[in-house]
Amino acid sequence: MLLHNGDWEVVRADVSVRDGRIATIEKATGRRNDRTGARRQAQVRDCSGCLIIPGLIQAHVHLCQTLFRGLADDLRLEDWLVRRIWPLEAAHTEETVYWSALLGAAELLLGGTTAILDMETVHYTGRAFEALERIGIRATAGKCLMDAHPEGAPLELAESTDVALSDAEALATRWHGAAEGRLRVCFAPRFVPSCSGPLLRAASDLAERFDAQLHTHAAETIVERETVLRTTGLEEIAYLDSVGIAGPRAALAHCVWVDGHETARLARQGTTVVHCPSSNLKLASGVAKIPELIAAGCRVAIGADGAPCNNRLDVFAEMRLAALVQKPRLGADALPAGQVLELATLGGARALGLEHDIGSIAPGKRADLVVLDLHEPHLHPAVGDPVSLVVYAAGPSDVRDVFVEGRPVVLGHELVTVPIEEIVREADRCAAELQRAAHLA
Amino acid sequence: MLLHNGDWEVVRADVSVRDGRIATIEKATGRRNDRTGARRQAQVRDCSGCLIIPGLIQAHVHLCQTLFRGLADDLRLEDWLVRRIWPLEAAHTEETVYWSALLGAAELLLGGTTAILDMETVHYTGRAFEALERIGIRATAGKCLMDAHPEGAPLELAESTDVALSDAEALATRWHGAAEGRLRVCFAPRFVPSCSGPLLRAASDLAERFDAQLHTHAAETIVERETVLRTTGLEEIAYLDSVGIAGPRAALAHCVWVDGHETARLARQGTTVVHCPSSNLKLASGVAKIPELIAAGCRVAIGADGAPCNNRLDVFAEMRLAALVQKPRLGADALPAGQVLELATLGGARALGLEHDIGSIAPGKRADLVVLDLHEPHLHPAVGDPVSLVVYAAGPSDVRDVFVEGRPVVLGHELVTVPIEEIVREADRCAAELQRAAHLA
Repeated sequence: MLLHNGDWEVVRADVSVRDGRIATIEKATGRRNDRTGARRQAQVRDCSGCLIIPGLIQAHVHLCQTLFRGLADDLRLEDWLVRRIWPLEAAHTEETVYWSALLGAAELLLGGTTAILDMETVHYTGRAFEALERIGIRATAGKCLMDAHPEGAPLELAESTDVALSDAEALATRWHGAAEGRLRVCFAPRFVPSCSGPLLRAASDLAERFDAQLHTHAAETIVERETVLRTTGLEEIAYLDSVGIAGPRAALAHCVWVDGHETARLARQGTTVVHCPSSNLKLASGVAKIPELIAAGCRVAIGADGAPCNNRLDVFAEMRLAALVQKPRLGADALPAGQVLELATLGGARALGLEHDIGSIAPGKRADLVVLDLHEPHLHPAVGDPVSLVVYAAGPSDVRDVFVEGRPVVLGHELVTVPIEEIVREADRCAAELQRAAHLA
Repeated sequence: MLLHNGDWEVVRADVSVRDGRIATIEKATGRRNDRTGARRQAQVRDCSGCLIIPGLIQAHVHLCQTLFRGLADDLRLEDWLVRRIWPLEAAHTEETVYWSALLGAAELLLGGTTAILDMETVHYTGRAFEALERIGIRATAGKCLMDAHPEGAPLELAESTDVALSDAEALATRWHGAAEGRLRVCFAPRFVPSCSGPLLRAASDLAERFDAQLHTHAAETIVERETVLRTTGLEEIAYLDSVGIAGPRAALAHCVWVDGHETARLARQGTTVVHCPSSNLKLASGVAKIPELIAAGCRVAIGADGAPCNNRLDVFAEMRLAALVQKPRLGADALPAGQVLELATLGGARALGLEHDIGSIAPGKRADLVVLDLHEPHLHPAVGDPVSLVVYAAGPSDVRDVFVEGRPVVLGHELVTVPIEEIVREADRCAAELQRAAHLA
């Protein structure tokens, strides 16, 4: 089992769970005493030969885009949005949002991601919550807020400031803290170019009122940075700060194009930067200076972004790439495995405002646990550092069991909460429908 | 099934195999006629719902290093060699070379790699061939040639020019064309700084005499580039050319640090560059300018390099990273999925000198085939381009069946040629032994 006490530590131990929380972690004695005392009524899952790690956390995903996988390859961000993503999001129906969330969440859970910070589209976010409730992932999700109308955005995605805010507030009233706290709402302005100042300020106020997180994109491309500077007269991070999108409630995806001043501001405010290395490469946005951000004291989490800009939702791929992509610039010892694993656990927990509940295996924390099966040849020899194996060598197919709040959602590599055949069949059908409706087929 | 006629094309078809070669590809009619005619005696494998792709090819691996996985993380090339890889290679025994090759080849086959260009260590390469013969992969392998003694290399790896060459010649006599042509020998000088001019020239002559390939490293780091310039007075690619390590017989791993003149020379000679994107990032070597090399007319293949600098031997990870890593520099449309898949198929075949035999699914070619199971959620929706799914979304766990020369080596995700439990157990034991012998434990 992988514990974290300042650094990662591997111990041979038994973990017990009560009422969704980790009750005890006992060094394994080798003796089985399943028949005695309190264990008599307990369900026991044998994990010998396995490594139990904290549930992995991705703090920037768009489940509403899962159905767009493979439909928007090899385009830069601005074309990717205008030519593919916005038309497809505009074509979404209640049904397609639902199955898109289920497909994405199934991939995430099967691959060891137990908690997410999710940005949905403008409409039908309630249906996404229904999907997330059914499948059993821990999720903080928000409807996409956009009241300014950026060039190329379809009319279906345009909302007035008031409608956007009242819809978001209604979602928060219905879903924030639902499923015994497993589901939470965030307030999610898309990005500065699609949002008015009053909308951003009101989103910040709502987050305060509901004790919820803020979730947006920032400084993803040089074009975005220059647009924000031109339209607001401020550097992007300073502008976000001026409208209240900053501090421990705020998670800013990307931050590829931030300078030293902005880095210092992010650190000072305790804002989380969510690193999405695959997405930043695939959309040709650049490489975020993560080691510098960490050195400056910034909070950093990690995420796969959406299926059409990745095209996986695989936290192992993101961890490995996060480590590798910094090394040519900063040296082979930049962002070593242990630090990267912290981004996907403790860093993610902070991004969700849940650092007291998830992100490590410790008594009192929620029992979000992943059991890695170590028998495959790509995880051998088993003589080195297990953290290196997890970050550099493991993959989603090594995930055997997944528990969220102590409840099994994946057992023996199979999703147990929703029939996977149904998800895949309905997702294929919905995607074909969206392609036609968006005139891409 | 994925065919290649100038571009990739997906057809619904049945493929028949006779005597290890593809006999026919017939458009599927939907009707089953298994009971009639020639099919009566044939073994039939139902691949409905799957995608059959050409066996994937990795043109630069070091199977002798598989046992070092996780033992040399976060070090730059020069430290990585001197502090870990050379001491570990020096500790190798006949037994450890054998199990290292089996562990690596098992991972490769289970992940859809059917053919490799392999560089072993200085000693016991015959034992690696025995492993490769047993497990059923297609392999061109060579003992590592090094007669100059670079700083920090252990004495156990030092050989005289004559001993190195006569050992290599004996291996070629024994193994070149063995296992009905499935195994071939290459001549594999480690890299210019560890080889005398006469050794390189003699290796080139031996390759000519045996009709075999040459396999070396070139221009991996800026340090190597400058060392070669200082010691030989020539740019590295020009120097290699001057000693006969050039042309269609030669595969040069890395080529991160080549300038425009050297690129033109590589193209003119028909030399293959083997791109190892993970290794180049992890050892902080840099990013090879693959789109520029391709545009100049160079032959390019792909490879995972060794387990301690990757730490996977996963051709899907290499393909995806090869595409992604170029985009921030050159734009989101650089190295699109179809082109990357060519590096791992047709490009690899050319690197092995086997372009008439492998690298695509066509009548008369060897039946090296990979069956991808498309049922997992990360490969859905199934409405986009299948080549995008293969390159950007698929992984080794999607490989259901693997055939080499028509012979099943993986069926239903299980290796059928060698018991996997035995490989993993012996590999773990051997790795612990090497760690102790190299004083790293």
